[in-house]
Amino acid sequence: MKRAVAVVGAGPAGLTLANLIQQSGIDCVVLERASRTHVETRPRAGVLEHRSVTMLESLGLADRLLMEADRHGTCEFRVSGQVFQVAYSDLYGGREHYVYPQQEVVKDLIGAFLAAGGDIRFEVSDVELRDLTGSTPSVAWTSADGVREEVSCDFVAGCDGFHGVSRPSIPEGVLTEYTHHHGIEWLAILAEAPPSTKAIIYALHADGFAGHMLRSPAISRFYLQVPVGTKAEDWSDEQVWEALHKRFALHDSSWELTEGKIIEKRVLDMRSHVVEPMSYGRLFLLGDAAHIITPVGAKGMNLAMNDAATFGRALIDFYESGSETGLKTYSEDCLKRVWRAQEFSQWMVNMIHTDVSSPFFGRLAQARLEHLADSPAYRATFAENYVGP
Amino acid sequence: MKRAVAVVGAGPAGLTLANLIQQSGIDCVVLERASRTHVETRPRAGVLEHRSVTMLESLGLADRLLMEADRHGTCEFRVSGQVFQVAYSDLYGGREHYVYPQQEVVKDLIGAFLAAGGDIRFEVSDVELRDLTGSTPSVAWTSADGVREEVSCDFVAGCDGFHGVSRPSIPEGVLTEYTHHHGIEWLAILAEAPPSTKAIIYALHADGFAGHMLRSPAISRFYLQVPVGTKAEDWSDEQVWEALHKRFALHDSSWELTEGKIIEKRVLDMRSHVVEPMSYGRLFLLGDAAHIITPVGAKGMNLAMNDAATFGRALIDFYESGSETGLKTYSEDCLKRVWRAQEFSQWMVNMIHTDVSSPFFGRLAQARLEHLADSPAYRATFAENYVGP
Repeated sequence: MKRAVAVVGAGPAGLTLANLIQQSGIDCVVLERASRTHVETRPRAGVLEHRSVTMLESLGLADRLLMEADRHGTCEFRVSGQVFQVAYSDLYGGREHYVYPQQEVVKDLIGAFLAAGGDIRFEVSDVELRDLTGSTPSVAWTSADGVREEVSCDFVAGCDGFHGVSRPSIPEGVLTEYTHHHGIEWLAILAEAPPSTKAIIYALHADGFAGHMLRSPAISRFYLQVPVGTKAEDWSDEQVWEALHKRFALHDSSWELTEGKIIEKRVLDMRSHVVEPMSYGRLFLLGDAAHIITPVGAKGMNLAMNDAATFGRALIDFYESGSETGLKTYSEDCLKRVWRAQEFSQWMVNMIHTDVSSPFFGRLAQARLEHLADSPAYRATFAENYVGP
Repeated sequence: MKRAVAVVGAGPAGLTLANLIQQSGIDCVVLERASRTHVETRPRAGVLEHRSVTMLESLGLADRLLMEADRHGTCEFRVSGQVFQVAYSDLYGGREHYVYPQQEVVKDLIGAFLAAGGDIRFEVSDVELRDLTGSTPSVAWTSADGVREEVSCDFVAGCDGFHGVSRPSIPEGVLTEYTHHHGIEWLAILAEAPPSTKAIIYALHADGFAGHMLRSPAISRFYLQVPVGTKAEDWSDEQVWEALHKRFALHDSSWELTEGKIIEKRVLDMRSHVVEPMSYGRLFLLGDAAHIITPVGAKGMNLAMNDAATFGRALIDFYESGSETGLKTYSEDCLKRVWRAQEFSQWMVNMIHTDVSSPFFGRLAQARLEHLADSPAYRATFAENYVGP
């Protein structure tokens, strides 16, 4: 089999890229370890930035998203029973967040790609990347039926996440890895509960951070900072609701948290990881394969889509005009945005977690939040980082 | 001896307070361990914020300062041989920094206080604070002549710095102490060299931070980040100049560093320290006695003066109207500004030091600096924090 591009991984990065280049007549095959049902139902991220939506829209891939996604332009902070909101959309040219679960993005992108004749192989195993520094790399895999197959191609797009095979296919010593464990763990909860709020809530509490995120009219996402080493099963549903009630509680307010059936509980370890450069020979890394960011600030899926748009444009340039400029600057172009997001996420991690490393930093977090409440200039900066650029 | 207020320490905090209350007819005595010559010549901080200058001006204490101080509204960042400037004054209502060495502030304040009949005792020893929770506390000391003396008073102002006796006079368990060692050391250099720049320079370099601060037309202050545990005598003058040349170096520029005779070399350990509350009975802590901040952002002397202004107003209210409100809110009022400054200083410490704790944070520092170069909103926030509010 011969294709221009082999795309390893059918997440937001791989599928955005596949649609983008397919529309320009660049043929590709997409390889995915999991089943179609699995990737179309796995709850992960849930927020698209204005910029990601504009890009999908320009590809004609945003029809359902624009119809169904909730738009948000305000978020809420709670500390010591007090509340304040930041109307980030008003502060940044009307740009909004689109609340649209990652699995719905994936569903739309798979549907569009297949409808246009795209080729995705689900449930592949033993994926192997070969000859990455030669002019014709190849990717081999075992199909769902147990048949060993192979594609030779011009480029390999490694979109298979942090645990995928793409990054480890690069010889040791080539990449510089930057990594940080934040020493913070969250219990991520998905509940069949209608949202109790119109704006995302970030709550600081002496017991730890709590977050109320939005997913759909019937489903809500909650986060609870938990002691490092906690297991999801350590927390009964009753304990989860008790902690959420306590950490979200407001003085002088009739606000109430609506409970519902908890359908997912898992522990997230806050970590950051970036490799430089994001390419090796004819292998290009996209999304989580190249960089992991904490969920704070909701940047992960948007960075993955930015990588896909950047690499897609570079490929189109290459096939249309023979220019290698975009391929050569791909890594640098993406990394600028990646590090900007990492810096913002770190700033926000430090703000919403009390007593992360010491009481001194707990008080700095409080001061940062008070400054955000008090200073229009600081809120404008927050808005630019949060919803844009 | 009986006085309304005993002021322990003749630094910027104690002397500002003494002048302020003396002008309102509240009598006080100022006690200082060092000699007049010592405090009037000891080089320490060098930057006054607009707000501190306005306050001194309103007390008629800024005549020489306004005549002699250099005003600055721009600072410069250098990284990897590139340079960019932030015109913080233009970004924050024209507010400027006044470069005026701390010892000159001290000289002016001592002169004015004594000229108006003020009472300062220099070279006192064995200072003892007594009955701080009673209605008539007292302070005892041994005079320069070796005579044991004592003043009973209504209030004691503890302005004797981090190592003074005031804070340790508060029983254990009363204060909550927040402390952080940044794990960063600077070699602070004072040189008889005219400034090589019109704007303060903050340089990031793989070898560590370098700073070029301004003091006077003939004297410059330099900082070099050095390995933890470094002794000042480990660095020859030649090594100092070599490191400064290297870290300030610019590509494509004829900029040159002017050398001069090095007249002071000492190692600064970056640390932060805050106690809460800033009072105990009738003892009130001001300036470094209550809080230490890193030199990054030049906030220390300005916080000390803000404490003095806040406590001074509270005392005037108390003596004029019997109101205790200002005394009761003193600690909270000051701490809000103290934590705001600590948060900003930490933000800036993280930005100008490469590889403080890990390469990951080194890249975040670079991303923060790039964002400052790129984003007008971010620069506006920086300006507000740096020169105001």
